[in-house]
Amino acid sequence: MTQSAPETPRTAAPPRIVTACVLIIGNEILSGRTADENLAFLARGLNEVGIRLREARVIPDLAEVIIDTVDEVRRRFDYVFTTGGIGPTHDDITAQCIADAFGVPLVLHPDAKRLLETHYLPGQLNAARLRMAMVPQGAALLPNPISRAPGFQIGNVYVLPGVPNIMRGIFEQLKYRLAGGDKVLSRSVSCALGEGTLAADLAALQERWPDIEIGSYPYFRRGDFGVTLVLRGTDRERLAAATEAVTALIRALGGEPQEGLGEG
Amino acid sequence: MTQSAPETPRTAAPPRIVTACVLIIGNEILSGRTADENLAFLARGLNEVGIRLREARVIPDLAEVIIDTVDEVRRRFDYVFTTGGIGPTHDDITAQCIADAFGVPLVLHPDAKRLLETHYLPGQLNAARLRMAMVPQGAALLPNPISRAPGFQIGNVYVLPGVPNIMRGIFEQLKYRLAGGDKVLSRSVSCALGEGTLAADLAALQERWPDIEIGSYPYFRRGDFGVTLVLRGTDRERLAAATEAVTALIRALGGEPQEGLGEG
Repeated sequence: MTQSAPETPRTAAPPRIVTACVLIIGNEILSGRTADENLAFLARGLNEVGIRLREARVIPDLAEVIIDTVDEVRRRFDYVFTTGGIGPTHDDITAQCIADAFGVPLVLHPDAKRLLETHYLPGQLNAARLRMAMVPQGAALLPNPISRAPGFQIGNVYVLPGVPNIMRGIFEQLKYRLAGGDKVLSRSVSCALGEGTLAADLAALQERWPDIEIGSYPYFRRGDFGVTLVLRGTDRERLAAATEAVTALIRALGGEPQEGLGEG
Repeated sequence: MTQSAPETPRTAAPPRIVTACVLIIGNEILSGRTADENLAFLARGLNEVGIRLREARVIPDLAEVIIDTVDEVRRRFDYVFTTGGIGPTHDDITAQCIADAFGVPLVLHPDAKRLLETHYLPGQLNAARLRMAMVPQGAALLPNPISRAPGFQIGNVYVLPGVPNIMRGIFEQLKYRLAGGDKVLSRSVSCALGEGTLAADLAALQERWPDIEIGSYPYFRRGDFGVTLVLRGTDRERLAAATEAVTALIRALGGEPQEGLGEG
């Protein structure tokens, strides 16, 4: 950050934007029985490699809904990540639905079968467990460092398990192979002013910095209240200058700005 | 539960099904900065009054996306609940988007204005704060027991704030006014068997009880692993009988069933 922030900001080059959608598949999330832990993790991980999560959906274990949703979002976003429904039981229908969405058959993947064979004792690898080696024709396996069942990738769709630590293990290994665009950087400034006190000037500031997204999030903790302003953009210098403008605004309105630094 | 569970289950009357979709509006959820806390709460609260959450979406603070999504889901589901984007700042665009989705103007609601007037000292109720009293024409206010900004309802769409404790306060007051259908009851049975060991017999059992949804969820904790089977349905007797069948299956396969009781 410099003291000589430009009065009229220079024009930034348009950022390279790569988008993603996450599909969380599972009745247990929609019933409220299980709280999803995967979305925030994937959101942060994708941002690390320059991919913007643009939408997430939680959908039930219903074939028609899964097929239609996958088919819609794989056309609208650069990447799609699904979680859930790839185990051995009757309610694990994600692999078949992905195959149907791509119009290809579900086939036994020889490498996935070998992985399962090394994991189970003779006689334990029954027909149900072998289902975990079935993938849509043309899919590539995603290495699973924790358990024996791999996820898989077909086209721009990455199919991950729902169990959080296993999902994380697979995603951590695959994320650096994803082709991202410009990474979104963020900075935040908090103060004890009310949102309504800041709103008019903040809106004017947002208009002046159209390429920096300014979000305003009130907080209430321990009887204390205030607002955190989050600035996000791909150009580090412009982000710094916009943050400086926000900080100056807070001071001008009698507030005490507290800065934070971050990504995402 | 009785010892005389029917061998051939009697036919259940078709349940009255009322559906809902939740829209979580906010860039901060998609960036991973904030973990959503509202979805699981709404899922459980809706189930309490006989409404089934069928889908949830997390969407960004972009007018076009909000308008299109609201317009799509309000036609597909009996109820729609949105969270986020109803504060006083430039990034709070939900009310305008809902108005656009319904094709009506955004108007100042006199009762909402009066609420704000009682809350703020003279001079503090500026134009930005007055925006919180703007609702789509024809909308009804939703009482807010915690802060001064009401949510609102128009048609089958209920618009709630994103701050969890305020959202909860409003929802708790409105939920008993919602017209639900048959409530989904649930029971669960856990055991230390592997999913693959149970899978084939469980699939057969699911076929025999088509109106009872049987979900299989593996767990891994403290080096321990096993599976929780969750049974859900609207007919208490049939649910009990199906649970008994699952319990018997676990015993037959050498497992030790541990029952839980619940809703949702």
